[in-house]
Amino acid sequence: MNPKNEYRYSYLTWEEMNDAIAMQKVVLLPTGSTEQHGPHLPLETDAFLVEAVCMEAGRQASDSILVLPTISYGLNMHHIDFPGTIHIEPETFIAFCLNITKSVAYHGFKKILLVNGHGSNGPLVDLVARKTVLATESLCAAVSYFSLAMEAFKQVQDTKVIAHSDEFETSLYLYLAPERVRKEKALPGSDVVGKNLSSDSTSNYPVRFNDFWGRWTKTGVHGDPTTATPEKGKVIFHAAVKGLIEVVDEWRKWPISERSDQHEGPVQSKIRW
Amino acid sequence: MNPKNEYRYSYLTWEEMNDAIAMQKVVLLPTGSTEQHGPHLPLETDAFLVEAVCMEAGRQASDSILVLPTISYGLNMHHIDFPGTIHIEPETFIAFCLNITKSVAYHGFKKILLVNGHGSNGPLVDLVARKTVLATESLCAAVSYFSLAMEAFKQVQDTKVIAHSDEFETSLYLYLAPERVRKEKALPGSDVVGKNLSSDSTSNYPVRFNDFWGRWTKTGVHGDPTTATPEKGKVIFHAAVKGLIEVVDEWRKWPISERSDQHEGPVQSKIRW
Amino acid sequence: MNPKNEYRYSYLTWEEMNDAIAMQKVVLLPTGSTEQHGPHLPLETDAFLVEAVCMEAGRQASDSILVLPTISYGLNMHHIDFPGTIHIEPETFIAFCLNITKSVAYHGFKKILLVNGHGSNGPLVDLVARKTVLATESLCAAVSYFSLAMEAFKQVQDTKVIAHSDEFETSLYLYLAPERVRKEKALPGSDVVGKNLSSDSTSNYPVRFNDFWGRWTKTGVHGDPTTATPEKGKVIFHAAVKGLIEVVDEWRKWPISERSDQHEGPVQSKIRW
Amino acid sequence: MNPKNEYRYSYLTWEEMNDAIAMQKVVLLPTGSTEQHGPHLPLETDAFLVEAVCMEAGRQASDSILVLPTISYGLNMHHIDFPGTIHIEPETFIAFCLNITKSVAYHGFKKILLVNGHGSNGPLVDLVARKTVLATESLCAAVSYFSLAMEAFKQVQDTKVIAHSDEFETSLYLYLAPERVRKEKALPGSDVVGKNLSSDSTSNYPVRFNDFWGRWTKTGVHGDPTTATPEKGKVIFHAAVKGLIEVVDEWRKWPISERSDQHEGPVQSKIRW
Amino acid sequence: MNPKNEYRYSYLTWEEMNDAIAMQKVVLLPTGSTEQHGPHLPLETDAFLVEAVCMEAGRQASDSILVLPTISYGLNMHHIDFPGTIHIEPETFIAFCLNITKSVAYHGFKKILLVNGHGSNGPLVDLVARKTVLATESLCAAVSYFSLAMEAFKQVQDTKVIAHSDEFETSLYLYLAPERVRKEKALPGSDVVGKNLSSDSTSNYPVRFNDFWGRWTKTGVHGDPTTATPEKGKVIFHAAVKGLIEVVDEWRKWPISERSDQHEGPVQSKIRW
Amino acid sequence: MNPKNEYRYSYLTWEEMNDAIAMQKVVLLPTGSTEQHGPHLPLETDAFLVEAVCMEAGRQASDSILVLPTISYGLNMHHIDFPGTIHIEPETFIAFCLNITKSVAYHGFKKILLVNGHGSNGPLVDLVARKTVLATESLCAAVSYFSLAMEAFKQVQDTKVIAHSDEFETSLYLYLAPERVRKEKALPGSDVVGKNLSSDSTSNYPVRFNDFWGRWTKTGVHGDPTTATPEKGKVIFHAAVKGLIEVVDEWRKWPISERSDQHEGPVQSKIRW
Repeated sequence: MNPKNEYRYSYLTWEEMNDAIAMQKVVLLPTGSTEQHGPHLPLETDAFLVEAVCMEAGRQASDSILVLPTISYGLNMHHIDFPGTIHIEPETFIAFCLNITKSVAYHGFKKILLVNGHGSNGPLVDLVARKTVLATESLCAAVSYFSLAMEAFKQVQDTKVIAHSDEFETSLYLYLAPERVRKEKALPGSDVVGKNLSSDSTSNYPVRFNDFWGRWTKTGVHGDPTTATPEKGKVIFHAAVKGLIEVVDEWRKWPISERSDQHEGPVQSKIRW
Repeated sequence: MNPKNEYRYSYLTWEEMNDAIAMQKVVLLPTGSTEQHGPHLPLETDAFLVEAVCMEAGRQASDSILVLPTISYGLNMHHIDFPGTIHIEPETFIAFCLNITKSVAYHGFKKILLVNGHGSNGPLVDLVARKTVLATESLCAAVSYFSLAMEAFKQVQDTKVIAHSDEFETSLYLYLAPERVRKEKALPGSDVVGKNLSSDSTSNYPVRFNDFWGRWTKTGVHGDPTTATPEKGKVIFHAAVKGLIEVVDEWRKWPISERSDQHEGPVQSKIRW
Repeated sequence: MNPKNEYRYSYLTWEEMNDAIAMQKVVLLPTGSTEQHGPHLPLETDAFLVEAVCMEAGRQASDSILVLPTISYGLNMHHIDFPGTIHIEPETFIAFCLNITKSVAYHGFKKILLVNGHGSNGPLVDLVARKTVLATESLCAAVSYFSLAMEAFKQVQDTKVIAHSDEFETSLYLYLAPERVRKEKALPGSDVVGKNLSSDSTSNYPVRFNDFWGRWTKTGVHGDPTTATPEKGKVIFHAAVKGLIEVVDEWRKWPISERSDQHEGPVQSKIRW
Repeated sequence: MNPKNEYRYSYLTWEEMNDAIAMQKVVLLPTGSTEQHGPHLPLETDAFLVEAVCMEAGRQASDSILVLPTISYGLNMHHIDFPGTIHIEPETFIAFCLNITKSVAYHGFKKILLVNGHGSNGPLVDLVARKTVLATESLCAAVSYFSLAMEAFKQVQDTKVIAHSDEFETSLYLYLAPERVRKEKALPGSDVVGKNLSSDSTSNYPVRFNDFWGRWTKTGVHGDPTTATPEKGKVIFHAAVKGLIEVVDEWRKWPISERSDQHEGPVQSKIRW
Repeated sequence: MNPKNEYRYSYLTWEEMNDAIAMQKVVLLPTGSTEQHGPHLPLETDAFLVEAVCMEAGRQASDSILVLPTISYGLNMHHIDFPGTIHIEPETFIAFCLNITKSVAYHGFKKILLVNGHGSNGPLVDLVARKTVLATESLCAAVSYFSLAMEAFKQVQDTKVIAHSDEFETSLYLYLAPERVRKEKALPGSDVVGKNLSSDSTSNYPVRFNDFWGRWTKTGVHGDPTTATPEKGKVIFHAAVKGLIEVVDEWRKWPISERSDQHEGPVQSKIRW
Repeated sequence: MNPKNEYRYSYLTWEEMNDAIAMQKVVLLPTGSTEQHGPHLPLETDAFLVEAVCMEAGRQASDSILVLPTISYGLNMHHIDFPGTIHIEPETFIAFCLNITKSVAYHGFKKILLVNGHGSNGPLVDLVARKTVLATESLCAAVSYFSLAMEAFKQVQDTKVIAHSDEFETSLYLYLAPERVRKEKALPGSDVVGKNLSSDSTSNYPVRFNDFWGRWTKTGVHGDPTTATPEKGKVIFHAAVKGLIEVVDEWRKWPISERSDQHEGPVQSKIRW
C-alpha cells in the first residue's frame, strides 16, 4: 500500500495525512440517508449509492481525492410514516457536517466537496458549503451525484418522473448490488401533481413544497422503477463517476483570491457572529 | 374600505381576521434582503421588488391573498465586503420566519406561501416551508418571484447571465421606481466562471458554491445591467404577478389529505424532536 | 436626490454608504409588532407608529440619522388568543436584531439606536443593546418612542391607564392615518388590577407580570381609546419626534472611551463566550 | 421542626413537599450575582442581600412562602474588567431559571415569584416570568427587592444616585453583615451623565444603555457609599421584607382564569414553538 | 480578616481578588442538586454535602483554595415523579457552569476544579472540564467528592449498594446536620438488578442506564440508609476533605505545557467552532 | 436472504422493518471516531473496531439484533494537533444521535443500545441514553465495547496502561485487518502521570481531566502497542462479541414498568422542557 494513492481519508495515519495535505487532495464528504425507499429498495439506498460513486471516483483519481466516511442519516421527517426511516433535524445535520468541514479546513485542506445522495439534503449541503466558505480560509462546494449523471441517463431513460426509488435509483442499485433489490416488489408510484408544484416537488418545479409522504402514497415510491435495468445503472454510474472526477479537477484548480474590501474606513473584523 | 377585500395582513383588526381565516386566503410572506446591489441600485432592491410583486398580486386577487409585512433582511455574509450589507445567520432567519408561519397556522390559515426575492435565501425558505409542513396542520410552500417571470423575460432578454443587479433586476427597478436607480453608474460585472461551477453559482450550475464576493468583484454586480429598460421591467412585473396569482390559485385548491401510516404496530407520536 | 441627505438606510447604494459611515450618522432600528390591537386598530399599529416617528425624525435630521427597515414582528404569545397575532420567540427576536446591529457595527457605524414601539419588546431591545455593546466596538442603546412623548401627552391626557390600544396609541393613529381606525368600535378595556401588579403590569408597577390576555379581556384593549383625538395624536407625534432627535444628538456626541482594566496580571481576552 | 412552617424549599423531603403544594405556598427564586462591588463590598453583595430579604420574609410568613436556593450568578460581562466578576450569558441564565420554574410548576405550585437582587438581571427575570406563564399552567412574576424598599429609603436618603455599591447597598450590607464591609475603602463613584442616558442608565432614564464599566470607572462604584449607615440599612431591610410579604399575599390570591379564545374557527393548539 | 486567608470566592472584593490570582489558588466550583432523597433526607442533600466538604477543605487549605458559590441544581428529570425535584436540562447545566469557568479563567486563574455531589451530574461536569480546557488557556478538571471518600468508607461500610440516600449519604448527613435527618423514615430501597446493568446503573456496571425512578421505586431510595451512623459520616467527611486537599495540591503543581503541533503545513487556528 | 435474519438495519425495506419491530430486535447504534491513532494505526480505528464487534454480534444473534449505520465521528478537539482528526462538538454529537434514537423509538422499537468505541464519547453516549429514556416510551442504554472485553484481555495483557492506540486496540486491529497496521511504526507513548489524575485520565482515576494531547505527546499514543499480537486481538474480539450478545439478551428481557407518581395532587405533564 502506498499511502499517497490511498483515497479513503480514514485509512491514513496522522503522519500520512501530512502528505495528503501537501498534495492538496480534494476532500469529499458523501451525505446520504437511512430512509424508506419503497417495497423494493433497502433503507440504505441513498447512502449506498453516493458512497459507491465517491469510492469509485477516489479509486480512479486517488492522487486528487480523499473520501471521508459517509454521513448515513439525513432530513427525513416527511417519510416518517414508513417504518425504519431515520430523521435528523436540519440544524443538527448542518452543524454536524460543518464540524467535519471545519476540521478538514483546520488541517490545511483548501478544497472540500460535499457529495450528496439524498434529495432532501439539498438545501442543507448548500448551507454547509456556504457556511464553510464564510467560516474558514478554505473553499467548500456541494453537488448531488445524480445531477452529474442526469444528462447521460436521458439517453436511456424510459419513464418521465425521476424522484425517489424510481427508474434511476433502481437501475443504479441493480447495477451495483442486484442481490439487495426486491425487484418483484417494484411498482410505479405517483404523487399529487399540479402545474407549478407537486406533493414532493422535484427541482424542475418553481415552487418548493414537500408534503408528508403519508398524505399521498402508500408505497413510498415516486417515479416508476419497473423499467429499471442494470444496464441503465451502468450508464448512470460511469457518468456520475466521470462527472465527479471532472468537478474535482475543476475544483482543485479554482483560485482562492484575496478579498478586496470596499469600505473607505476600517471594519470591525473581530465581531463574532 | 371593505375588510374582505383588504390584502394587507396587518391592516386588518383581529375581528376582521376571523373573516379572512373563514375565507381561507393564502397568506404570503415576502422575504427580501438589505444588501449591496452594485453602484447603481439601492440596498433595498430584493425587499422592494418582491414586496411590489406581492402587493400587486394582492391588489388584483384580494379575495384570495393576504400579504404579511416583508422580511427585509437575509443571508448576506458573502457580500459583507460591500458597505451597508446586513447579514442574518441562516438558523436565525429560519427560526424567525418559522415563528411567523407557525403563528399564521395557529390561527387556522391552511395555506402559506413564502415569496422570496433574494437568491441566497433560497435554501432557507425551502427549509421554512418544509419545517412548517412538519410542525403544523397547514401546508407551506416557497417560491422565488423571479422564477415566475423568467419565461416571459427570456422574450426580451439581451444579456446572458442573470444573477444580481443585472439586466433583470435593474429593468424591474426601472419600471417600478426609476428615480432610485443610479443608471449612469451601471456597469457589467463578471464572476470567475468554470464548466461546473462559478464563484456565485446560479441555479443552472450543478455545483452549489458561493464565494465571498470580495474575492471576485469590486463592483458587486453579477450580470449586465447596462441593457436594462423599464419596458423589460414591465414584462417581468406583469409576468411575476400573473404567475404568483396562478400559483396562489393552485395552492388554494391543493388537498390536505390524512396521513396514512404504514406501521403495523403503534408509533410513539408524542416524541418531541 | 442628494445621498448625504437620504435618511432611509436601504435607499443608499454601497458607494453612498461609505459617505454615511464617514458622517457617522446614528443608525436607528425601529422594532414593532404584528398583533391584535382591539376591535378598532389594525394589527400593524406598533410597527406603523414607531416607523412613522423614526421616518419623520430622519426627515428632519437627515444629516445625522439613517433609519433601517422596520422589524414588524415581536414577542406576542400572550396575545395569541386574538386572531392574526404573530409571535416571535424572545431568543429569536434578540438574535435577529443582533445580527443587524453587528452588521451595522461591522461597517463602521459607532452609534446604533433601537427605537421600540411594542411594550413587550422592552426587555428584548434592552438585551440587544447590551449584547451589541459587549460584542462590538460600537455603542448601542434602546428607547421606546412612547417614553419620549409621555411628558407632553400628560398635558392632554384624559384617561388614566396607558397600556395598549388606548387613548395614547389611538390618538397617534388618528393623527397619522385616521382612515384605518375603526373609531366606532373603540371601547374601554380593563385588566385585573392589584396594588403591586396587574394582569399586564405596566412599568409603574414594581412587579413584572404579563398574563395571557385571553384570561382577562375579550376585546384586547388595555386603557380607554374612547377619548382619543387626532389633536392629541399630533401632540404625541411631535413630542416623540423632537425627543428622538434630541436623543440622537446626545448619542452622537457620546464618548467611546478606552476600557481600563483593573487586573494586575494578564487576562484571557481570546475566550469565546 | 414542623415541616409546614419550614420556608426553605430544599430543607423539605419529597413527602413533606406534598403538604407544601397542598398549602399552595408561593415559591420564591432569589436571583443574585457574583460581581465586583467596588473596593469596599464583596463580590457576593447582590446574592447575599436578596437572599437575606427572602429568608426573612420566609421566616415571618412561613405558611405562605418557600424560598428556593439562590442563583448566585448573573449577567455581568460589562463588569469583566474588574477581577473576580462572573458572567452568565443572558440566554443561559434564562434557560437555567426557566428549568427551575417549570419544575416547580410541574409539581403543582401555582404561584412563583422571582426575587431579583442584581439590576442587570432585570430584563432576564422579566422574560423568565413571561416564559413561565406561557409554558405552564402556573403564574410567574418577577420583582427586584430594592424596588420594594425605595419608598422607605427615600426618607433617609442623603445622596442622589442609587445604582451600584452605593448608599443603598452599602447601608443594607452594614446592617446585615458589617464585618464584611471594608468601610474605609468606600469612595463615591460617578458615571458619564447626559440628559436622556448615562453610561449605566438607571431605570429613571428613558434610554436603556449599559457601557463596559471599564470605560468610565476605575473603582466600580456608581453612587456614593460614604454616607451609608447600618441604621439606613435597617430601614431598607424591613421595608423590603414587608413589601415582599405584601406582594406574596397579593400574589397568592391572584385569580388564574380560563383563557377565552376569540377565534371563530379552530386553532392549532398542538404547535410546538 | 486577612483576605489572603479567605477561601470563599465571593467574600473577596475585586481588589483582593488580584491577590488571590497572584497566589494562583485553585478555584473550586461545587455542583449539587435539589432533588428527592427518600423520605428521610431533605432535597438539598447533594448540594449541602458537597458544599460542606469544599468549605472545610477551603478552611484547612485557605492559601490554596477559593470556593465559588454552589450550583444547587442539576440533571434530575428521572426523579420528577417525586415532589419538589428540580430538573436542569444537561445542555443548560453545561452552558451555565462553562460561563463560570470561562469567567474564572478570564481573570487569570490557571487551575479550576469542579467538585460534584450529584451522580447524574457526572457526565456533565466531565464535559464542562473538557470544554474549559479546549476553550481557555487554563486547565479544568472534575471530581465527585464521594469518590475521594470511598476507600475510607469501605472500612466501615455495612451495606452493599452505594447509590442514593443510602448508608453513605445518610451517614454523612447525620454527622453534619443530624437535626435535618428524619431518621425514623429511613428504609432500604431496591432497584431492578441484572448482571450488566440495573435500573439506575451505578459506576461499577459496564452499561450506562438510568430509568425513570418512578418505574422502580416508591420511596426514592437506592441503597440502605438504616445502618447509617454519624460515626461513619465522620469517617467519610474527613476522608473526602483530606482527599480533596490532596487533589488540589497535585492540581496546583500540574504543568501547563506548550502544545506541539504535528502539522507540517500551517493550520487555520482562527476557525470558530 | 431471509429478512428476519438480516441484522443490518439499513439493508431492510420498510415493509420488512415491520417484521423487525414485531420481533422487538434490539437496535444497536455503533459510535466511533475519525481521529489520530498514533503513527501505526489509521484514523478510522475506533469506528472500524466498534463496527466489527457489532456486526459480528449481529451475525451471531440475527434474531435479536439490528445494527444501525455507524457514527464515524466524535468528540476530538483535544487531538486536533494531529493531522486529519475530525472534531464534533459534544452538543452536536448528542443531538445527532438523539435524532436517531428518537426515530427508532418512534417506529416502535422498545430497546436501543448505543455501542461506543471512542473513550471521549463516553459522557456523550451516557447522555444520549438518558435523554432517550426521558423523551420516549422506549429504553436506551450505552456501553463501550472495550469494557466488555477487559476482563478477558487481562488474561493476556502484558503492558499496564490501556488508553489509546495501545496493546489492546492494536491487537484487535491486528486480528481484524493486519494489512492496515503500520506495525513497524508502533512505539510506546506516555502521558504526564500523577496520583489522582493523568493528562488523559482513564476511568480508574477519580479525577476527570483531558488535556490537549499536543501538550504531552508527539506520537499520539497512550499506552504501549509494541506487545500487541493478533492472538490477543482474537481474545478481545470474541470476548467483546460474547459480552455484547449477553448484554443484548439481558436488555431484551428488561421490564418497562409503569411510572408510579408520588404526587398527591395533579402534575403539569404537558410542560415542554
